[in-house]
Amino acid sequence: MSKKLFIPGPIDVNEDVLAQMAKQVISHRGSEASALQEAITEKLQDLFYTKNNILLSTSSGSGLMEGSIRSCTLKRAAVLSCGSFGDRWYKMGVLNGVPADLFKVELGKAIEPEMVDKVLSTNKYDTVMVTHNETSTGIANPIKEIGEVIKKYDNIIYCVDAVSSAGGMKIEVDESNIDICLTSVQKALGLPPGMSLCTFSEKAKKRAEKVPNRGYYFDLLAIYEYIQNKNYQYPSTPSLSHMFALNFQLKKILNEGLDNRFNRHEEMANLVRDWAQEHFQIFTDVNYLSNTLTVIKNTQGISVSNLNKKLQERGFLIANGYGDLKEKTFRISHMGDYTVKDVNELLININEILGF
Amino acid sequence: MSKKLFIPGPIDVNEDVLAQMAKQVISHRGSEASALQEAITEKLQDLFYTKNNILLSTSSGSGLMEGSIRSCTLKRAAVLSCGSFGDRWYKMGVLNGVPADLFKVELGKAIEPEMVDKVLSTNKYDTVMVTHNETSTGIANPIKEIGEVIKKYDNIIYCVDAVSSAGGMKIEVDESNIDICLTSVQKALGLPPGMSLCTFSEKAKKRAEKVPNRGYYFDLLAIYEYIQNKNYQYPSTPSLSHMFALNFQLKKILNEGLDNRFNRHEEMANLVRDWAQEHFQIFTDVNYLSNTLTVIKNTQGISVSNLNKKLQERGFLIANGYGDLKEKTFRISHMGDYTVKDVNELLININEILGF
Repeated sequence: MSKKLFIPGPIDVNEDVLAQMAKQVISHRGSEASALQEAITEKLQDLFYTKNNILLSTSSGSGLMEGSIRSCTLKRAAVLSCGSFGDRWYKMGVLNGVPADLFKVELGKAIEPEMVDKVLSTNKYDTVMVTHNETSTGIANPIKEIGEVIKKYDNIIYCVDAVSSAGGMKIEVDESNIDICLTSVQKALGLPPGMSLCTFSEKAKKRAEKVPNRGYYFDLLAIYEYIQNKNYQYPSTPSLSHMFALNFQLKKILNEGLDNRFNRHEEMANLVRDWAQEHFQIFTDVNYLSNTLTVIKNTQGISVSNLNKKLQERGFLIANGYGDLKEKTFRISHMGDYTVKDVNELLININEILGF
Repeated sequence: MSKKLFIPGPIDVNEDVLAQMAKQVISHRGSEASALQEAITEKLQDLFYTKNNILLSTSSGSGLMEGSIRSCTLKRAAVLSCGSFGDRWYKMGVLNGVPADLFKVELGKAIEPEMVDKVLSTNKYDTVMVTHNETSTGIANPIKEIGEVIKKYDNIIYCVDAVSSAGGMKIEVDESNIDICLTSVQKALGLPPGMSLCTFSEKAKKRAEKVPNRGYYFDLLAIYEYIQNKNYQYPSTPSLSHMFALNFQLKKILNEGLDNRFNRHEEMANLVRDWAQEHFQIFTDVNYLSNTLTVIKNTQGISVSNLNKKLQERGFLIANGYGDLKEKTFRISHMGDYTVKDVNELLININEILGF
């Protein structure tokens, strides 16, 4: 089957993974549910190169973004934003009464380690929020190098939004000093939307213990403690269907080999970048390009909406620019189990429509 | 297929509904997603006998419980509790800094309208939280009669937790003056867990507009406004798989006929009650019995755990008593698409095991 959704999630899901969504439900309080969550945990620890705990959440990635800024900020959060999703994280802090400041870079630019260093040197903050892969601009921020900066400071909880990168780009959580690395399943993990997950360090746990007003459903400490006390169970009833599919898909991901998977995403990105540079321009700072999507500057002044309408007639969909970047840019995304062949097929169709 | 999970959710799901969970995903920002959410909304309005708006949430029912007390309490919440789930609602208020008081009745007793009247006559409250069907005790509270009381007072937002009753017992939202009636899909609606939903009145909307600190993911006003402004779409990426299955299942529910469905649940309950009265006793005040589960007093001093172990060998599962009621009571639940035949089969197996 050729892939049709080239938007930055949700994406087309393989049939064998979809079949797992249709498994008969089990009790969420039995040993079978515990074993399932434990099996998922072990595989996610491999995927994230971490020994830290794994928390699951029946919600979109936004839920865990809200949960992390609210559960772990005692003093003040520094939210570093390079686009819409960073801005959203700051908004979540404000809407929960969490003291927070927003530091923005120009759209298309990255959050560089020096900027983080400067922000932290004020000694005003105890959490740092960084988007790894900003789907509104196509930036992949240098989260490992930012982690080196964070090491210099005492007691900073480092939270990374890896919603559109985890499973498609290498994220070494422990090596990068990341306390909370969150993602949702409908992006590079290749599942239908409806579940999110994060890594959760002991340091984050100790911080959350001191934070009042963490709420209920997204209180990361409460989820953590439930797992500890109830042998890998979940405080409320989780989406068991997503857990079946996630466990199955993680087996496939680890069987593919993480490096093979990450290389495949890079190959797809290279293909789109070459095409973009031939016909348009890349919108994003070329030193920090994402491997799961490319944002293309509409230098030819085409109507992106019209292109997308014609693509849809052929069974494909790409994404217009996000927010203010609509029509000024457009986005081609390739995540999960997509292949070079799928991307080639899309580009051939775009070429035919645009007469390239 | 004989049903095996006789716990108060999750329950066994019919194969044709499960198949919907395996449908290929679509863009959550396209017209197909809008049409899907609109179709679900119309059917849920029928199910709840309401003209009010319907909000969907990718979360367990706890998410919308938290969202309702937090989004709509300006002055102070009165949480009326007849068991564990009422207590949880109060706790959610406290954990979010919402001023709230807890009014408890003895386990096994109902929340009667007079009690609500007395609480509201203090003029201290502007939200009232009532559990419709308390699965820890088997009580179905008289939510319609409570609604009559609430009518006497100005500007009270009336929130009902119908998690384990909606779809199995008649709930006339508009007739009962309910502003927010919430449920999750893995109970009497007969779906796998992973989504919750609620009705949302204009009065609730106007209240939420005045409430600060509503958070992000469970801000009911934000979900409402997104639906209004974005033509039935959802602020973050929803579980499309659950939406496919929900729309399909609601069609089946309306085809069965609501009264037929509610009667079927009552017949199953009558069967279990008769059996319970023959061999044990009913734990619950018989004037307020739930039609989706029966809580049975363990007057014979059987080991409920052992019974359940033996049932599991035969492919069935019932629920032990909840919390402090463990072993003192046990619970038999029958929801969704279960039939009298399924319940009979379970009871025959219990009889064989216990030598009745």
